[in-house]
Amino acid sequence: MIHTMICNRNHHLLDDLPHDTSQTMLVDGDDIIWLDVEAPSKEEIQQLATTFKIHPLAVEDITKAHQRAKIDIYDDFYFLVFFDIDYIEEGNLLDEHELAIVVGKDFLLTIHQEPIEEIAEVATRFRRNAKEIERGLGVLLYSLLDTIVDHYFPVLDQIGERIEELETQVIEFSNGENTAGIRDIFSLKRELIHLRRQIAPQRDATAVLARRELPLISEATGVYFQDLYEHVLRVTDAIDVYRELLSGVFDAYLSVNSNKLATASNNLNAVMKRLTSYSIILMSVTLIAGIYGMNFDNMPELQWRLGYPFSLGLMLVVAGTLALIFKRERWF
Amino acid sequence: MIHTMICNRNHHLLDDLPHDTSQTMLVDGDDIIWLDVEAPSKEEIQQLATTFKIHPLAVEDITKAHQRAKIDIYDDFYFLVFFDIDYIEEGNLLDEHELAIVVGKDFLLTIHQEPIEEIAEVATRFRRNAKEIERGLGVLLYSLLDTIVDHYFPVLDQIGERIEELETQVIEFSNGENTAGIRDIFSLKRELIHLRRQIAPQRDATAVLARRELPLISEATGVYFQDLYEHVLRVTDAIDVYRELLSGVFDAYLSVNSNKLATASNNLNAVMKRLTSYSIILMSVTLIAGIYGMNFDNMPELQWRLGYPFSLGLMLVVAGTLALIFKRERWF
Amino acid sequence: MIHTMICNRNHHLLDDLPHDTSQTMLVDGDDIIWLDVEAPSKEEIQQLATTFKIHPLAVEDITKAHQRAKIDIYDDFYFLVFFDIDYIEEGNLLDEHELAIVVGKDFLLTIHQEPIEEIAEVATRFRRNAKEIERGLGVLLYSLLDTIVDHYFPVLDQIGERIEELETQVIEFSNGENTAGIRDIFSLKRELIHLRRQIAPQRDATAVLARRELPLISEATGVYFQDLYEHVLRVTDAIDVYRELLSGVFDAYLSVNSNKLATASNNLNAVMKRLTSYSIILMSVTLIAGIYGMNFDNMPELQWRLGYPFSLGLMLVVAGTLALIFKRERWF
Amino acid sequence: MIHTMICNRNHHLLDDLPHDTSQTMLVDGDDIIWLDVEAPSKEEIQQLATTFKIHPLAVEDITKAHQRAKIDIYDDFYFLVFFDIDYIEEGNLLDEHELAIVVGKDFLLTIHQEPIEEIAEVATRFRRNAKEIERGLGVLLYSLLDTIVDHYFPVLDQIGERIEELETQVIEFSNGENTAGIRDIFSLKRELIHLRRQIAPQRDATAVLARRELPLISEATGVYFQDLYEHVLRVTDAIDVYRELLSGVFDAYLSVNSNKLATASNNLNAVMKRLTSYSIILMSVTLIAGIYGMNFDNMPELQWRLGYPFSLGLMLVVAGTLALIFKRERWF
Amino acid sequence: MIHTMICNRNHHLLDDLPHDTSQTMLVDGDDIIWLDVEAPSKEEIQQLATTFKIHPLAVEDITKAHQRAKIDIYDDFYFLVFFDIDYIEEGNLLDEHELAIVVGKDFLLTIHQEPIEEIAEVATRFRRNAKEIERGLGVLLYSLLDTIVDHYFPVLDQIGERIEELETQVIEFSNGENTAGIRDIFSLKRELIHLRRQIAPQRDATAVLARRELPLISEATGVYFQDLYEHVLRVTDAIDVYRELLSGVFDAYLSVNSNKLATASNNLNAVMKRLTSYSIILMSVTLIAGIYGMNFDNMPELQWRLGYPFSLGLMLVVAGTLALIFKRERWF
Repeated sequence: MIHTMICNRNHHLLDDLPHDTSQTMLVDGDDIIWLDVEAPSKEEIQQLATTFKIHPLAVEDITKAHQRAKIDIYDDFYFLVFFDIDYIEEGNLLDEHELAIVVGKDFLLTIHQEPIEEIAEVATRFRRNAKEIERGLGVLLYSLLDTIVDHYFPVLDQIGERIEELETQVIEFSNGENTAGIRDIFSLKRELIHLRRQIAPQRDATAVLARRELPLISEATGVYFQDLYEHVLRVTDAIDVYRELLSGVFDAYLSVNSNKLATASNNLNAVMKRLTSYSIILMSVTLIAGIYGMNFDNMPELQWRLGYPFSLGLMLVVAGTLALIFKRERWF
Repeated sequence: MIHTMICNRNHHLLDDLPHDTSQTMLVDGDDIIWLDVEAPSKEEIQQLATTFKIHPLAVEDITKAHQRAKIDIYDDFYFLVFFDIDYIEEGNLLDEHELAIVVGKDFLLTIHQEPIEEIAEVATRFRRNAKEIERGLGVLLYSLLDTIVDHYFPVLDQIGERIEELETQVIEFSNGENTAGIRDIFSLKRELIHLRRQIAPQRDATAVLARRELPLISEATGVYFQDLYEHVLRVTDAIDVYRELLSGVFDAYLSVNSNKLATASNNLNAVMKRLTSYSIILMSVTLIAGIYGMNFDNMPELQWRLGYPFSLGLMLVVAGTLALIFKRERWF
Repeated sequence: MIHTMICNRNHHLLDDLPHDTSQTMLVDGDDIIWLDVEAPSKEEIQQLATTFKIHPLAVEDITKAHQRAKIDIYDDFYFLVFFDIDYIEEGNLLDEHELAIVVGKDFLLTIHQEPIEEIAEVATRFRRNAKEIERGLGVLLYSLLDTIVDHYFPVLDQIGERIEELETQVIEFSNGENTAGIRDIFSLKRELIHLRRQIAPQRDATAVLARRELPLISEATGVYFQDLYEHVLRVTDAIDVYRELLSGVFDAYLSVNSNKLATASNNLNAVMKRLTSYSIILMSVTLIAGIYGMNFDNMPELQWRLGYPFSLGLMLVVAGTLALIFKRERWF
Repeated sequence: MIHTMICNRNHHLLDDLPHDTSQTMLVDGDDIIWLDVEAPSKEEIQQLATTFKIHPLAVEDITKAHQRAKIDIYDDFYFLVFFDIDYIEEGNLLDEHELAIVVGKDFLLTIHQEPIEEIAEVATRFRRNAKEIERGLGVLLYSLLDTIVDHYFPVLDQIGERIEELETQVIEFSNGENTAGIRDIFSLKRELIHLRRQIAPQRDATAVLARRELPLISEATGVYFQDLYEHVLRVTDAIDVYRELLSGVFDAYLSVNSNKLATASNNLNAVMKRLTSYSIILMSVTLIAGIYGMNFDNMPELQWRLGYPFSLGLMLVVAGTLALIFKRERWF
Repeated sequence: MIHTMICNRNHHLLDDLPHDTSQTMLVDGDDIIWLDVEAPSKEEIQQLATTFKIHPLAVEDITKAHQRAKIDIYDDFYFLVFFDIDYIEEGNLLDEHELAIVVGKDFLLTIHQEPIEEIAEVATRFRRNAKEIERGLGVLLYSLLDTIVDHYFPVLDQIGERIEELETQVIEFSNGENTAGIRDIFSLKRELIHLRRQIAPQRDATAVLARRELPLISEATGVYFQDLYEHVLRVTDAIDVYRELLSGVFDAYLSVNSNKLATASNNLNAVMKRLTSYSIILMSVTLIAGIYGMNFDNMPELQWRLGYPFSLGLMLVVAGTLALIFKRERWF
């Protein structure tokens, strides 16, 4: 699928032209052409390469997916790779779409495998306001990248909320038995590492655009890319902060566990001391009963009139004495 | 609410003028104008933008809140975002107010949503000493930023005190059961991460001002911004130190817990050894009583005259022997 | 073993020439010569050094193995050391082969001890497309290095899969008793540290090639080395990500262990409480039986008609009361 | 208190002049003046500022204490803040004294609140060797800073010894119960963080002096400041090493604790197994005695002639069998 | 002890001359002189300083030991400090010897307190091949430093072997009780921190030599120092890798301990459950025996003909039922 959008010399915006026309119009003076190509075949890419004289290395980069975000400065065009990123709530997953951009003197190619909603968004905006595009390809490129970067912020917000959720879970877990958290902490950590790895080169590429040294981009749009650069910087800053917060959540998890363990050990000690105390008292008293249950012929106490109460009294005295001793040692 | 403060050619300070006048006076020669705008409507911002010819990107930055601190160098003016930060004791929270500043050749705009006391402070100072403002907008800007940065130090002091409190709590906790500390450690850590993230770009922006390359700021005031830069540096240094100290407090927490655990385990061992010893002694003695409580017709000991004392003696011998053995094994 | 590949002025590719010829042909005008030398003797290296006027230090580097990857810029040639790396599944081992490369104005030497399949691959490609080599030694060098670097990616993928495997093992281990994981985590970590150490200087060497300042490499091929540099960058990025993920797996291992420990402690507490409860109930009831088993002549209850049921009832009351108390204290 | 030391044109050193004289002498030709000011009043500082034409910002820095170490380059003078640091053995505390230094073309001001012994030391040295001072203010400044920096080394040595002490304590603690160490580790860590924070800017300031670009300091003395810079570098190096060693001590503490815990757990297991074994044997044997203590009319064994020995034999058999079983399961 | 080695204009190598001669020969034309001074007295150093016009600061550095490795660039000579390092197997100790080197236009001084075998090695090499020294002092300096650096590699290898040993110990320890490892880990860590601190400045000094900007060292030897720099780089790389591996060993130690702990806890649980089960069964059965051992006049079961078998049967039923219950709860 190839969508073509052309702004010709008379400020008319010609949308969704048949692909062939674009090639002829390109030859024509001051026109600016934007071709959006979705899921192209190898032949289509080759055809575009021939039309716009794209260097073989860039063509190879377009064909092979799974690039690093980057900007390559060729003599006649710039080749950019950027990423559109969405957050999928279940499983803390990030869904990303690679977008290859080729910017020449009078053309902009956007090439991607899956549909990217930011492109539709920018196209709609320029369709509404056709004069805008006259300000040059730089502004068009800025709008596109800025829209992509602006879509990172809700993703970041959702990650931020997720981290707060996890933190609450870990703290609640300090009372209960919820162990779900740890797996989530690690899967979110993995996503943050991955996200960081995707955004960092994007920042470097944006810095190149903001340096105002590229001949194909007018001086006046430099300030826009400076603004874009600051946005990407805020994104990487936020990711770093989230990683620190997440590692804080993990530390909290460990410390909650270690605290629970210490508490459990102390409880165990208390329990064991009570067990010791009670069972020793009962055993001692039972021993007395056992002694007077012996069958010796000659056991004077057995004939005593008050032998039985005496034995019960003896039991109480022994139990009481032991209880006092254990109380004093704080075993109860 | 718009407060206007003008210093005209004759060194008169005209305060709180009606807003319309400011526009006409601006045209007028060497006058310097400072407009402080609180919680402006979108229309007011637009009007200011038109009056002072502010670039649309800066206008957008003013309208959207939640910026990163920064300085943007435009051709005719500089756009700064700074943060006023207060410490709210309960909950270790930091309360921050965003301040957008636009500095032109002969005007200074300060735009913010909530009241910022540093602005009132600086205004009062300049009202008292009208001649000061003649030294140029640079000195005015420096006074403003320096007052904001000076307000960070009491915040830092309170954080420092809070960390010392937490450390004491953790060490006290090593004896008692106080678990409140861990949640406070993490909420303070979160605030420090956040604070660091707000101040770091402020430092970078101040470094730009201190570099003495900006045409709108006179050479002579460069040394002031150098001083300001050193102050911000001290702030970020202090934050880093606090983060290290806080992570030290967390380590202390873990080690106190681990120590408690080891102590609890050792105590448990001692308790179990005593339990083992006592109950084995009691069980052995009870066994003897049980044996002589058996009802066999033919049990010679039962007919012995001294059978009963013999049995009691046997019990004492067994108990004593066992006690000696356990004593030797250090189980008591 | 010396394989020679020559591209002479008439674009003929002359393969596997006898070694002597190569020396004479070198003298001859625009020809480009590629000598691939496997497991050379000291004499062969010396002979090559004389033929191509290689600096003694480079000769020493070729002779001594176990170099760091690098590029040395000599006046008439560049000396590179690169590593071909394979992954051996059992034992998470990396198998690496050192490759020394000497690039001169019109010759390329590749010297190695073990066979390196990437060299065969590149040779085959150039044999198929002899015209390619005319684009110069730069493109030949790029092809060689790019093929080597491209072989890192399957190695990285296998490491990535191994880490996911280990993570799954650690999580499964949270239920079972599988302790195999920890040794694997550390051996993989060791390999990653080692790999990082091998690739990082490779990245620096590639950066030198990409800087487009080397006279022996044409300007036009600079963009190729830029591309190569980005590939190596992706490799080091991936290694860093893997190291972070692996340290995450280790953290998960620790936290799973710490969680297991806390759970075990809590279980132990519950067990001890039940033991305490049951044994105290049984001991108390046994004590009653013991008392009525005493042989005192004068024990009124023994003569009661309902003495026996009374005693059984007493046992039930005592057991029930204790059970209620323990229930209330949540010891059951 | 103001001490004045002047070296006039004729190489005479005039010490402790009345303060007024210094002002007149300053006007006079090639003289060099060094004013050491201890605990000055605000008026005295103001007077000095007027005499030596010190910039208001530097005056403010002198008045406010608690600066960061630094060097500020003003047009006519340099303003330095340095710290004299002592080690107070009890409590691992560092005692520091701030020293403000102003260096002009022909004067050196040293301003401090508490007495600083290094100043007296340097003054004595120059009094002894008056010709030295002729080599210029640079040498004087170097002597002063070098003496201060040389005083750091005994402090570092004491910290080093303290760390070794702590390490020994932690290792000894692995046997006994000494928990004093942990608090000392953290207080020392806090001091090292603090020390690092004080010295690092000192290093940066010294680097500025060593760069040999400052007009007020002669080229020839550059090599001295290079030497000074290396000394400060050694100090910061040592602090970093000490911090690593201290964190190693903390790790050792944790591992000793974790080892103790594991040992305690293993001991506990052994104890519980013995308890289990012995009590089960005793309980079983007691059960047999209990059975033959039952009062059934019809219990054939009771009438057996060898009933009693039989029962005792049964007890021995049961006890022996159980002991064998437990022995085999390694519970003894 | 002063060894003198001179290469005079006629390529004769004059060894071990009397010291006085060296001074006169120095005056003489193109000769190169190398003085190796071992354990000099203060007077000897002073004499050398006068002869070779060494700056007082360098003299001070020679006199005071315990320097940081460095290179100081003076106008007429370079002053280097390097370290010769040996590994002493018992105690994981590193033995180091400081070597001060002064390189002038036509002289090389090597000054050290203890004998350094590398110096003898280089001297022997040059004695064998006198023509070598003609290539200049640069080559001589390179030979010396390269020999020193080459001696680091066996030290590194021994450290590497020691780490592998420790790793094996820690893994073996996971089964047994060997606690020797932890102390060794920390002493080795201390040595690595120390080694790192000694080598890092050596790397920086070598980088200065490799930069090819020093007038006293000929352009042509630059490539040699580049090679030397790479060797030192490999050393620091290896140290970093060893430190990571060692911290991995420590992590392994912790995890082995934590695993042991978790296993011990689980075993303890199992033990306690069995104890609970067995003792409850035995106690219950003993209770029945106790009941039928009561002496009530009116206990119908006692008169039953099958009372005794009934009671034994009851015991079996109770024991069996409880055993089934505990089996079902998996307490056995």
